[in-house]
Parts: sequence; C-alpha cells; structure tokens
Amino acid sequence: MTRVAILGATGYTAVELIKLLLRHPGVEITTLTSREETAPINQVHPVLAGRLSLPLENLSAKEVASRADCVFSCLPHAASAAVIPEILDAGVKVIDFSADYRLNSPEVFKKWYEIDHPDAARLGKVPYGLPELFRSEIVPAPLVANPGCYPTSAILPLWPLFQVKMIETSDIILDSKSGVSGAGRKPKLSLHYPECNESISAYGIGSHRHTPEIEQFLSSAAGAPVQVIFTPHLTPMTRGILTVAYSHPTRTVTQTDLIETLREFYANESFVQVIDQLPATKDVAHTNCCQITARVVNGRVVTISVIDNLIKGASGAALQNFNLMFGYPETTALL
Amino acid sequence: MTRVAILGATGYTAVELIKLLLRHPGVEITTLTSREETAPINQVHPVLAGRLSLPLENLSAKEVASRADCVFSCLPHAASAAVIPEILDAGVKVIDFSADYRLNSPEVFKKWYEIDHPDAARLGKVPYGLPELFRSEIVPAPLVANPGCYPTSAILPLWPLFQVKMIETSDIILDSKSGVSGAGRKPKLSLHYPECNESISAYGIGSHRHTPEIEQFLSSAAGAPVQVIFTPHLTPMTRGILTVAYSHPTRTVTQTDLIETLREFYANESFVQVIDQLPATKDVAHTNCCQITARVVNGRVVTISVIDNLIKGASGAALQNFNLMFGYPETTALL
Amino acid sequence: MTRVAILGATGYTAVELIKLLLRHPGVEITTLTSREETAPINQVHPVLAGRLSLPLENLSAKEVASRADCVFSCLPHAASAAVIPEILDAGVKVIDFSADYRLNSPEVFKKWYEIDHPDAARLGKVPYGLPELFRSEIVPAPLVANPGCYPTSAILPLWPLFQVKMIETSDIILDSKSGVSGAGRKPKLSLHYPECNESISAYGIGSHRHTPEIEQFLSSAAGAPVQVIFTPHLTPMTRGILTVAYSHPTRTVTQTDLIETLREFYANESFVQVIDQLPATKDVAHTNCCQITARVVNGRVVTISVIDNLIKGASGAALQNFNLMFGYPETTALL
Amino acid sequence: MTRVAILGATGYTAVELIKLLLRHPGVEITTLTSREETAPINQVHPVLAGRLSLPLENLSAKEVASRADCVFSCLPHAASAAVIPEILDAGVKVIDFSADYRLNSPEVFKKWYEIDHPDAARLGKVPYGLPELFRSEIVPAPLVANPGCYPTSAILPLWPLFQVKMIETSDIILDSKSGVSGAGRKPKLSLHYPECNESISAYGIGSHRHTPEIEQFLSSAAGAPVQVIFTPHLTPMTRGILTVAYSHPTRTVTQTDLIETLREFYANESFVQVIDQLPATKDVAHTNCCQITARVVNGRVVTISVIDNLIKGASGAALQNFNLMFGYPETTALL
Repeated sequence: MTRVAILGATGYTAVELIKLLLRHPGVEITTLTSREETAPINQVHPVLAGRLSLPLENLSAKEVASRADCVFSCLPHAASAAVIPEILDAGVKVIDFSADYRLNSPEVFKKWYEIDHPDAARLGKVPYGLPELFRSEIVPAPLVANPGCYPTSAILPLWPLFQVKMIETSDIILDSKSGVSGAGRKPKLSLHYPECNESISAYGIGSHRHTPEIEQFLSSAAGAPVQVIFTPHLTPMTRGILTVAYSHPTRTVTQTDLIETLREFYANESFVQVIDQLPATKDVAHTNCCQITARVVNGRVVTISVIDNLIKGASGAALQNFNLMFGYPETTALL
Repeated sequence: MTRVAILGATGYTAVELIKLLLRHPGVEITTLTSREETAPINQVHPVLAGRLSLPLENLSAKEVASRADCVFSCLPHAASAAVIPEILDAGVKVIDFSADYRLNSPEVFKKWYEIDHPDAARLGKVPYGLPELFRSEIVPAPLVANPGCYPTSAILPLWPLFQVKMIETSDIILDSKSGVSGAGRKPKLSLHYPECNESISAYGIGSHRHTPEIEQFLSSAAGAPVQVIFTPHLTPMTRGILTVAYSHPTRTVTQTDLIETLREFYANESFVQVIDQLPATKDVAHTNCCQITARVVNGRVVTISVIDNLIKGASGAALQNFNLMFGYPETTALL
Repeated sequence: MTRVAILGATGYTAVELIKLLLRHPGVEITTLTSREETAPINQVHPVLAGRLSLPLENLSAKEVASRADCVFSCLPHAASAAVIPEILDAGVKVIDFSADYRLNSPEVFKKWYEIDHPDAARLGKVPYGLPELFRSEIVPAPLVANPGCYPTSAILPLWPLFQVKMIETSDIILDSKSGVSGAGRKPKLSLHYPECNESISAYGIGSHRHTPEIEQFLSSAAGAPVQVIFTPHLTPMTRGILTVAYSHPTRTVTQTDLIETLREFYANESFVQVIDQLPATKDVAHTNCCQITARVVNGRVVTISVIDNLIKGASGAALQNFNLMFGYPETTALL
Repeated sequence: MTRVAILGATGYTAVELIKLLLRHPGVEITTLTSREETAPINQVHPVLAGRLSLPLENLSAKEVASRADCVFSCLPHAASAAVIPEILDAGVKVIDFSADYRLNSPEVFKKWYEIDHPDAARLGKVPYGLPELFRSEIVPAPLVANPGCYPTSAILPLWPLFQVKMIETSDIILDSKSGVSGAGRKPKLSLHYPECNESISAYGIGSHRHTPEIEQFLSSAAGAPVQVIFTPHLTPMTRGILTVAYSHPTRTVTQTDLIETLREFYANESFVQVIDQLPATKDVAHTNCCQITARVVNGRVVTISVIDNLIKGASGAALQNFNLMFGYPETTALL
C-alpha cells in the first residue's frame, strides 16, 4: 500500500482527491492537514460520511513526511513551496496543486504572484503534470507540478496544432468559462449564491494568473513565443470549464484536417477524446476526460475543449500523475 | 412628492425596494444609509446604473428624519428599534423590515432573539403590515411592522380557514422552501455558491425565528393558541418561497369548499390570487402577488402558497403599506 | 465475468447504471436495447465517450436472454412486465427498474397505473430491492423489483421507527423534494429549462404513483395499515431527493431516542448513515448513500433523509441488488 | 389609448412584452393570437394571474388589424412576413420580432433561412429597431424590424468604435453567452432541464442565423464589409446575454480611449450605460439596459456587453420602438 498525505485538505480539490483515492486499491490515506480545522474530515465534508473519518491535523512537514510515501499539497501558492523542499528531502514524493512549480522563471513568478519564490532554484526542473504531454518526465520525478484548470483546458487542444505548425503563434484568443468551484471554498461576495446564480460575467481579463502558465507551455509547443488574450468567465454552475480558442492557421485547413491532427496525437490516450460534435461541460463532469473538437470559421481555427475543473483540471490529473510516479496503471481509480 | 429614506440600504430587500420606488410617481428617494459603505448606490448595486446614484451615508436618526417623510428601515433586529423611536418622535412615519415590532410580547421577543427589546413599550400597538388582513390599522399608523417572508407565505392561506373555523388549531405543519436571497447578502459558507447549488436542505427545524410571528397571527385568526411545526428549506434558486401547510379540517371538507372560502375572502384583493392549479414560485417571481390553492388528501387539508420573498415577502409589501399610509392607490408601482 | 444487458438503455437511470457497471471488475456489458435509437451509446450519451461504444439494438426478449446472465430492465411500467417472464423462463436473472413488481396486489396496480398487470400471478412473490430491509430475500431471487426513488427516501427513515412501534401509523406526512432528472429524459414543457429553473413547485399531491408503494411497505413495517399524505416537489436541480416525514410518536421521545434507534438499526449498513446534523442532498450526490437524521418539534417526530435519486434511488440500488444476487461483495463498484 | 395586438402571444418574448405593456399608461391590449391555444393568457402564463385574462384567438390579419393601432408580431420568420403586409395595408403599424425585415437582401435571407422571402420588395426599407442608432428612421416608420438578441449585444458596443475608425474591419470575434430562454418555449432534448443545468456548451459556431444580421449592421457602421466569427453558447441560466468582442485597433489605443469614445456616443441614452467595471448579466436582468465596458489586452481591443435577452434583446426594445412610433416618451414603462 502506498501511504498518502494531503496538505490543506479542506478545499474542493482535496475532497475530490479523497473520493478518487478511496477507490484506489493501492492507496492508504494516512494524513490530512489543516491549519484551521481539527474535526474529522467527514464532518467538514459530509459527502465523505461512511467513507473516511480521519481527523484534520496541524502538522509539520517532517511529521507529514514520516507518515507518507506521497504528499499531495493543496496549499496556496508560496505556502506550498515553503514546505515541499523539506518533504522532498525526506525522500517523499510530492504532487503540488499550487502554481509554485509550474513556471520556469522566478521573475515571471514574481511578476504575476507578487512575491519572491520560496524555492526558486527548483524552477524549471519540475515536470508539468499533464501526462499526455510529459509522461516520460513525470514517471521518475520526485515532484510534479499539477497543472492549473484553465491551462489544462487551453493547452491540450492547442499543443498538437502548434507542434505540427498548423496554427500561427500570434493572435491567440482563449475565451474560457468556468464553474464557480474553481474559485475555491472561501466565501466572498462575488461567490455568494445570489450573486452568481442566474448570471455570467467575465473577470480578470488580461490579468488572470493562469496566463503565464498557458503562455509558457504554448510557447514550448510552438518553439516560439506565444502570447494569449485570456478571458475567463464565472458561469452559474459548480463544475466544468469550456474553453474556446481562436487562432490563425498557417495554411488553408479544413475541419477534418484539424480533427484528424488532434485525433492522431491523442490516439492512445485514455483521457482525451477528440470528437466530431460540439461538447458540453456535462459530458465530462465527474470524469478525468478532456473532450476536444475543432471548427474552421471564415478561415480561422476555432477549437473547443471541455474538462471537469476539479477532476481533469485538478484532482484527477493529480491521481493520474500519482499512478505514473508509483507504477500503477495510469487509469487506476480514474475510469 | 413624498420624501423617502432607506436605512441599511445595501441589502437585497433594499435594492428591490429602490427599484419599486423608482417607478412610483409620488416618491423622491432622498437618503440612503449604511454604516459601512459610502459609495454611490449604483456602484454597490450595478443593476441601478442609470437609475439612481445617491451616495450611501452614515447618518443619525435626526439627520434622516429631517430629510424624509417616510423612512424604510432595513436594519437588523434590535438595531432597528434602537433608532425608530427618535424618527417617530420627529413626526416621520416608519416602515420597519426587521422583526422588532412584529411580536406583541417583549418576553417572546427575548426568548427568540436573545436580547432585551430596545422599545418594548411600543410592542402590541404597531400594526402588522399585511394589508389584506390589517388594512384599516395600517392606513393611519405612524409605524408599521413589515412582515417576515415565511410568515407572509404561511399566514395568507391559513388565516381565512381559521377565521371560519374550517381547520383545527392543533397539529399545523408548515413545510416551506425558500430561495437563497432570503438569507441575506452577507457571505458565509452555507450560502457559498458551490454549497447551495444543486442541493436542497432543511435548516432551523423547530428553531427558526419566524415561528413565533407565524404562531401569533395564526392564533389571532383562530381565536385560540396555535402552535406550528415549521420546517424551512434552502432551495437552489435566488427568489421565491413555496409553503405547503398541512392541517386537520374541523369537519369534512372538499377542495371546492377550501378554494371557495379562500377565493371569497380575497375576492377584492389585487395581490392575492386563489387559483385552481398548483402554483410554482416562478408564477409570482418579481411580482407582489401571492398565489394560493388547496387540496384535500386523505381527509387532511393541504394548502399551497407561493410568493416572491423579496417582493410580497418584503419590499413589495412595504410599498403596499406605504401607499396606504400616504394615501396613494394601493397598487401604485406594484403592478 | 457476469454478462449484463440493459433494456431501454437511453434514459438517465440507464446511463448512471452503465457508469457504475463499467467500474465493476466482474461485469461485462454485452447488450443495450432501445426501440427507437440504433446509435452507439456514447453518441447518445457523450459522457460515455472513451468508455463504452456498444450500439443500441432493438432485440427480442429471447435474443437478450441469450446474451446475458443478468438483465436490468429500464423499460416503462407494463412494458417491463411484458418481456420479463420470457427472460426469466430462459434462466436469466432480472432486476426491474419499473413499478411492475413492486406492488403485491394486481387491483392496487390497476387502480394507480390504469392498466391490467401483464404478469399478475407473480405479484407478491418478488422481493423489493431495498437490501437494507430485504437482503435475505434478494440473494436467491431470480427477479428483484428495484424500488422507486421517493419510496427509498421515505421507507428507510420510517421503517425502523415503525418496527419498534415508536411512531403512530396514522397521520403520516411525507414532503419530498426531487431534482428534475427523476422525471425522465423525455422533453416536455414542465421540464423545459426555463420552466424549471429558478422555481420550485409541488405536483401530483395525493395522486403520485409512488404513494401505494410507500404505503405497502410502511404498512408491512408497522404491521398495520399506513396511509400517507405524500407531496412531491420539482426542485431546480438535476439530482437528489430530500424527504421530510412528519409523524406522531407513540410515547414521549427525544431526538436522541430517534437517532439511536435509527443508528442501531443501520449500524452494519455501508450505504445508510444516521447523522446528527441536517443533511443536504449534495452530501449524497453521486453516491449510493442515504443520510438520515431526526428531530422532535412540538412533540412530533420529524425525520429528514436524503438520497441521490439516480443512484440510491435507482441505479446504485440496482447494482447493490446485483452484487447480492451474483455473489459479489455488496459494495463492489459502489464506494 | 393606443390599441395593441400581439401575434403569437404564447412565447417568452410575448409574455415579457405583455408585462411591460400592462405598465404603460397609454396602452390597451385588445388582442392576443395563437394558432394552437384558445385559453385565457393567464392560464398559459400564470405569472399574469390577476393582471390579464384575455383569451388567445386564431384570427386573420384583417381581424387583427381591425382591433389594433399597433401589432407586435412574435410569429416565426416567414410566417411573420406572410401576414404583415395585409396589416400594414390596413393602416396599422407593426413591430416585427422575427428576422423577416432585418436583412436588406432577399438573397442573404434565402441563404440563411432557406426559404424565399414572402415580402421581398420591402427589404431594405424597414428601419432596424435599435433606437440608439436609428431613432430618426423609427419615429415615422409604419413597420420596424425589432433586432435579434445577440445582434443587439454585439452591435451596440462595436458601432461607435467602427464609426470613428478605432477598430479594424477584419478579424472580429464575437464570443456570446446566452440564457436558455433565448431558444424559445418549445420543449426539446437540448433544452430539457437536466441537459442544460450544470453545463455550458457552444452551438451553431459559424452557422447561427444572427450572423448576417450582425455583419450587415457592423458593415454599415464601418463603411466597409465586416465579417465576424460568432460563437454563441447555451449558458445554465434563464435570462441574459454576455458578449465579448475581440477586435484589432487601427492605432494604439488605451482602455480610457475606448471607454470615453463609447461614453460620449451613448451620453444621452437612457438604456445604454458605459461603465468602468466588468458587468454581469444580472446587472441588467429584467431591465431594458445594455451595460458596456472595454479593455485593451496585448494590444487588442476587448469589449464586454450585457443585456437581458428578453427585454433589451426583444420586448423592451420593441416597447422602446413603440414609444417612438406613437409619440410617447421613449422610456415610458421601461424604467
């Protein structure tokens, strides 16, 4: 049995992770931490009633490391990188849900997160936890940077098109719509039920922190700098992200060209389906899947992708990475 | 023009009141107060953009009284009764949205609100702002206690049946379902979008503070003490209350008997419709109407009533009272 | 491997069943039938993309029986009992989602379903698929009547209280709130998104077809006839049922008495949690669990129970029955 | 009093129109038509209970014309233009909600609507009912083409920018999100509550019939052909449209440049607010307002606009046109 600990275990991604881990035949959850709560986890999240009653504990990195073979960190950015080095030093593997190890550059990190990176030396050496793109780096890694939800929905459809130079690097527009759970579990007015319900709004246009993450990996795919215009929206639903990406083709392409390129690229992947029809977020809700299709409109490429922001956009991806890092079949507990 | 001030003008009932008042040909809104915010109201509530840009101000009762002929108090309980006497002393009329003047007994108030009443001497002398039942008392009153939302939905269907002794006073069950706006605008975990959405829950069973208000007025209708079992629910919608009331008939009655009794009682009312079919809360959303019907099941009386909790359950009722108190046609700005 | 067929495989309960079966290590889905569609199931339900691509087929009972060891019938009432006998005759076990084998009496069936029962001789001999109550009858049965969703939510909390004579048989009120998926996948105006959204309504008061099923089993628990007043509601959410049941205690009882009685009764059950706090439907969404608690208000017993109508109220219960009938651990693929 | 008739009075836009007309001091609704229903309108739409009980009637154009000074046609495309000429010939004014008189070219109409236009000679001579842009043509017109909901949300923010040549005519992207009521009241699977709820999806990419209408008017504003990439989305809410438009500036512009240009253009308009913050659809729900703002991201222009699809996107705009055509103050019954 692989012993697992979760840091910051009260949030929405943590509870989804716990639900998945409980289905995993090789996992024992030994430790859940919180700096604020001490109740059993099933009191904080009654959906776990009858399934898990571990208490939340406020523990040091050393204590956590002594109880686990793998630590999932659901701590906020900066807080995560402040404790991960000590856990790694104890020989324990880590999957980090925060943004701390996704960017290669401490300067870019500081620009967007407005803080000095607590573990800057490690940046650029940590694989990005999108197994469909970085599987071979993930398998042997002691630390994996679990991707952001919006970046997952944006990178998966565009990566293959950039790789074969089918689309231009300039003038990429990403119009993304997310369910409210993506904003976390901390109450605030903008997430208050009567404020979100029966309403959609754009937010953080040009300033959302997932922007540099998306640009870094699309640039890597394209082999040239890619800048994006990224417009996230708060949508009146709990789960799901739909991203429509607009790009210019490098040559005349058809819908068939696009779909076939994507289909070929993901042909052996269990969790990416390239489809002909237009997907809805409900088609991937509560699954680890990303569904993708493409269209050509007025000579421009339009890709459409959907994920469950809490599963493929967070906890499902983390478990997929875990399976790779610990030698389990990649789909274990994810189908 | 009747000059109007609103105390505590940032909440959901206040903004609904403002929207109604702006349609009223005889009203000028002169003053909006808040102890915390100072922005123009249309920045706090962008839905008022282009309609009202009065600033929120932190004012004394005396200052408010000098600027208004009528004050609507949307302050919390106890805070409301702390300032209302001074406003009344200045000769200004008041419509109070809080629970402060609804109960007749300071002891009952203290039992349920756990505080000594700040203006106990006035209790029992303030008309309850359900015009359909207390119109003649409301017309000349300097102060009216605007009813609670649940009580409105519960009292309107049962009052006529009690009055004609058609139902027993014992064993009254009220199963009510409310939209989330009824819980106010202050963020907290239980009202966080992902917690409320796609979920219904009962709360405050046997302990909700609207219970004594309902019991007081049903007792008055029945001419004998009435106790109720009141189960409120938080329903995944912003607006609306549906109350199903279960009672025992005093003699064999038919659905027709019930509906005719109700229809006759409310025959001249603009805002109560007694209907044959089962109503949905959407049928009264954004209106000042209460729709009521009744059924007989296994010899028991079942009444069903729906209101918009923010309109007939709060701001619409307040404006209806205002119209009566200031000599405007009762339906002004409410149809 | 146990070969499984599903009759009427396009509805919401069927797709939930398929998702559960795909996680079952001992099951092979061989056959999906539909009288109208012939597409692969993952085109009808894109959420199955990458998981199952079996075509829908229009097959005779004999053909189905030749391909399966167990048949789940998701056909409508009467249609189901028209084909089940032939499947049973072929030695194949059946779990029936319809109401056809739930009632003991052909007369009661005819009264509520307005049709002569196609297989009346079998009524009264088919175990009711609530394993918590009828496990020993289910294990050896060739045919199990899977319970209705409302009845599951109503019977589980009340059965133990009736068994120990803690509540009276008269004057039982069931006020139930269901998500819209319970009404099926066939479009109609009352289920049209803009009609259901932001609205709650009661329907079928005194006439819902789940009434006789509830009364039959509560009578069995009580050892005496039980009649109920059953008020179902259409709630603006996709999944979930919350049932509040009001009953009279036979003697003075406390909340602790009630909860302890329930807790003891379900102590060894994996899928029933008796809890202290008030549950929300989200606490059991996407699980096979029923959460129950109880309160005493004004000397009256109030029980509150929640289930996922599509899982514990349909497909999860069916799989739980399947596990019992085929010798798998009862919780297989359900945790 | 101006006598008003509504053709096709059972849909969502018709009921919103009725609610607005009932507040209009100069209007008498005399006639409501339907080819299928004969019930009083308040039985079809219980929200009108106590407000209007006119029966639905199946009448000829001549009969309608004899009873009205103004006819609002909520008939489907082609059906509308089949009856409007006769009504106009009788000297009665018409406001047409359908697409029939919005396009200038019968060929473009045929291409997108796949039918020969029934009244082709009139195309190009009917003013488009966006009063903010075409007020002087609307005032004297016997017939006005009420705009589509998406076009309203797309044209209002872009028109002023095109007029001053601030944005390029090429490469315009419109990513629009609409509530479900925009798809009408006829039940179908894609609009079934459990299919729409908790899900967002794009549809009709590159093929939505509002595309030529948007292109025609943006071309007119720009004085040169404009093609758009238009991606509509079905959003899990009843009302509201949010449109994000991406365009290239013709020179370096700032957010302030954009907002000031828009603000100046709409300075005297009651129903367009140019704001600094990002709007949500709830900020205009149940109002006739359009809120607009703009951003510059990576050198590209991003405008964001919100309307209520049923009010400013349909019935409110129609009433605004009515007020202009009949000499009432433009805001009558709309504030």
